[in-house]
Formats: sequence, structure tokens, C-alpha cells
Amino acid sequence: MRDGGLVRVRLDLAYDGTEFSGWAQQPGRRTVQGELEAALARVLRCPARLTVAGRTDAGVHATGQVAHVDLPSTVWAAEEGRLLRRLAGVLPADIRVSALAQTWPGFHARFGALWRRYTYRLTDAPGGGSPLRRTDTVSWPRRLDDEAVAAAAVALRGVHDFAAFCRAREGGTTVRELQRLDWSRDEDAVLVAAVQADAFCHHMVRGLVGSLLAVGEGRRPVTWPASLLAHTERCHEIPVAPARGLTLVGVGYPADAAGLAARSAQTRVRRELSEDPPHP
Amino acid sequence: MRDGGLVRVRLDLAYDGTEFSGWAQQPGRRTVQGELEAALARVLRCPARLTVAGRTDAGVHATGQVAHVDLPSTVWAAEEGRLLRRLAGVLPADIRVSALAQTWPGFHARFGALWRRYTYRLTDAPGGGSPLRRTDTVSWPRRLDDEAVAAAAVALRGVHDFAAFCRAREGGTTVRELQRLDWSRDEDAVLVAAVQADAFCHHMVRGLVGSLLAVGEGRRPVTWPASLLAHTERCHEIPVAPARGLTLVGVGYPADAAGLAARSAQTRVRRELSEDPPHP
Repeated sequence: MRDGGLVRVRLDLAYDGTEFSGWAQQPGRRTVQGELEAALARVLRCPARLTVAGRTDAGVHATGQVAHVDLPSTVWAAEEGRLLRRLAGVLPADIRVSALAQTWPGFHARFGALWRRYTYRLTDAPGGGSPLRRTDTVSWPRRLDDEAVAAAAVALRGVHDFAAFCRAREGGTTVRELQRLDWSRDEDAVLVAAVQADAFCHHMVRGLVGSLLAVGEGRRPVTWPASLLAHTERCHEIPVAPARGLTLVGVGYPADAAGLAARSAQTRVRRELSEDPPHP
Repeated sequence: MRDGGLVRVRLDLAYDGTEFSGWAQQPGRRTVQGELEAALARVLRCPARLTVAGRTDAGVHATGQVAHVDLPSTVWAAEEGRLLRRLAGVLPADIRVSALAQTWPGFHARFGALWRRYTYRLTDAPGGGSPLRRTDTVSWPRRLDDEAVAAAAVALRGVHDFAAFCRAREGGTTVRELQRLDWSRDEDAVLVAAVQADAFCHHMVRGLVGSLLAVGEGRRPVTWPASLLAHTERCHEIPVAPARGLTLVGVGYPADAAGLAARSAQTRVRRELSEDPPHP
């Protein structure tokens, strides 16, 4: 390295979460971060530390995860054109880097994100769903009432304290803006939820889905999930839906650098005060 | 069994072909037919012999396979209402029966079929495709020219002798009507072929796709695949595309019993003469 400068690189990622103990590196566990940082270090011959938009839990998948890494500019200049294919050659089959590009130094995968979007897939077909999608689709043993689920979901949208639905973190705020929570059946009759928020607390999507499935089965009234928004701590009556149905499909960032800088500063202050990472 | 009568039952099936040596039962191999007949026999406590629309090869998947089985009417009467769930309980996770219904005695899954439809999925993204779809999507190491592939495909449609594209069978005709061969990119930039014919010869879809990929890579001219239709035996220059990208997605039958009876009689005569099963 002649100039000693660093380049910030954005990575767009996809993974099958089945065989991972989640995103975050943990000693002795197979994690997405661990595998990806090892592959980068091997290809680039220098250490690489990733910062990610959404630290997914064990078993949760991604098709639109975003991370950033700072690399020596000389390394980047030498590898830029071939890095994507070289990474594909060394990464295990359950992780892919779909895009890789230099970004501006103020880009921050986590603090710069405006929103995260997840899907949750489940089938209530009596014979089960397609074996080709069993990795990311939950088989539900009882029929679900689509209209009841959709009606209960509408009442959860907006800015609320989602404490009842989340695994608590000391001192963390659980106020979030749930921007989207739509349910539909796809062409294979799979029930798919599209869930978007500025950020998610730990287990929040799976808690929301779990409460709605209780409504869909007729075990709880349509008004039950929204009534839980009044709680100020976790409600243990809410079932946590299985990880396998959950996929991080996209992360949104401001279109220009000015917007991104403003967003990063604002979120960093709030998150550092609350020690509350975006976590589904 | 008091009356000794038989009931013909139609099964709609889906499977992940990865861990199977194809559909057809073979001693000492794990096959879809073998697993399914064993599950039926276990649940019904009587032997069950399946006849299938498309005898898929090792590694080929299905979401819309159709089979029929004849069951003692007393067994069917006792099990009808719960058979789908009971099968789901004993079948391995890579096979599902999605529907199960009594049909008329003249229904024939193989000889009554008007058409079979397959899809072939592949990604030429430099970083590879989504790990969640790696089971049924081929990663292609070079970029493909969509327009060249589509143009070459058009010229293959219609009634032709597809001998060049198929694994030969003694005495079998290789004349088929290729009703559809369309290529498109889906929302994830995966290249998807929709392929439909009255029936397929052995390896025919994978030969067609293999010839088109040679065009897409620029190794062969756009006119090459159609020029092979003049051959009367297998052309060993045609690469056979990998099994993993291929899925049987649907089988069409006449809407009424009269049409089905006519179709079955006609096809049975032709097939029995030719000893040529529908085989992708």
C-alpha cells in the first residue's frame, strides 16, 4: 500500500440461513459473517471486517442483505474487476455475493438504512408445500383464515412500541415504524407476508407473524395482536414463528450522499444511546 | 373388500429430485416411485402400483407431476378424507402429494396426457444466484445472450423429428410437437425456459436447452439448433444441460371423459408400437 488510503465497498448478499448460527460471528459457530470474512481475507490476503444492515438470527435467510467493508485502496484497485467471481469460487454454496461496488466513505450499511424489508412464507396445504421451497417456507399444520390474518395485520401498521413482540434488550427502545405488513397468496397458494419497518427489534417479525397465525387459526380474535401494542414488555403468550420462513429481501438507503449522511448521524446517536441493534 | 371393486385415484405430486435416482423404481436405488409406493402401502396396508405422466430422470424435479393408482374401493372409502395428511406424515420431506382425488376408470396419467410442461432455470450472474434456489437453478459460468437464445428457440417450435436431441431407444419415434419454447428473465434475473410438448423423448429438454446455451455463449450460430432437426440420430455435439435446472411443472388432460378416452386409445397404440415412453 503506497497511499495507505481506504476504500469503502458495499456488498449485496444472499444466503440460505439453514446451516448458520445467524449472521454475527461467534466463537466455534458457523456464521455468515465468519464465512464471508474468511473468504474475503483468503482472496484479498488482508483482514476484512464487515458491517451489516440486518443481523439475522439462526435459520433466517437473506436475498437482499447489505454490508460494507473498508479495504486498502491498492487492494481494491487490483481486485475490483475479478473479486465477484473469485469470491464465488471460494464461498460455500449457501452464501453468494451478488454485487460489490465502491461507495462513498460516509455510506454505512447499518446506520444509513432507511428501511429493512422481510418476507415470511408459509403453506397450509394439507399435503404440504413444494419440496423445492421447503428451505424457506414453513409448513403449517392447520388451515389459516386469510381475511382474519390480513385484518389483524392492518391494525399493527404505523409507529408503535412493539415491546410485546420483541426479545428485550437492556435499555433499548422498542418503538418502531411498521411501514408495511401485507399478506397475500402467491401463485402456488403459499401465504406470503411482506413486512417493512425503519428497523426491527430482536424477534420482532417472528413475533408479529406468530400473533397473526394465532388469529388465522381462530385461537385469538382479530383484535388481539393490536391490543398487545399497549404492553411495555415482552408478552410470553405470543408464539415466535419459526425462523425458516423468514428472509431479509431488501434494505433501503437515501438516494444521495446528503440524505445518507443525515440518516447515519441521526440513527447512530439513537442506536448508540439505546444499544439496540436492528434485529428481526 | 366386500365388493372387490377398484377405484382409480389421481395424485398430483411435487418432489425435489436431488436425492433421487429419478422416478422409476430400480432395485437398490432411492426413487420417487419407490418411496411413494412404499408410503402408500404403509398407510393403506395394501400394495399400490403407480402409473406416472412423465418418468423424470435422476436429479430432475417436479411441481406438477401426475400419477394414477387403482385402489380397492373399500380402502378408498375408509381413507379418502384423511389420506393426504397421513401421506404427508410418512413421506420424506423431498416428496409431497399436493392433491388426491377419485377419477373415472378411463383416466390414464401417461396415455391420457395432451401435453407436458417443463421449466429450466439458470443464472449467469457473475457472483452466482440465490442460495435459496440453488436446488433447482443451474449456475452458468459465462454470460448468456438472451436475444440469441430466444431467436434460436423460435426455430425449434412445431412438429419435428428431434432425434438429434434425444437419447436413442430401439425402434422409438422421435417425432414430437414442440408447442412452446419461451425464454425470459424473472424478477431475480434468472433465465427461465418454458418448454411444452405433447410428449418428450429421453433427454430431449436437456438437449434442447444445451444447444441453446451454446448459442447464448456465442460458441454456435443462432441457426445451429434448428439445423440439427435434419439429423436422424443423436448428435453428440449437443451438450446435455444439467438435470438440476429442470422441473416438470404441469401435465394437461382433456376436459371431458370422451376426449380423454380418445386420447388414451390413440396414444397407447402409438406408444406400445414404438416402446417410447415420455421422458425428458
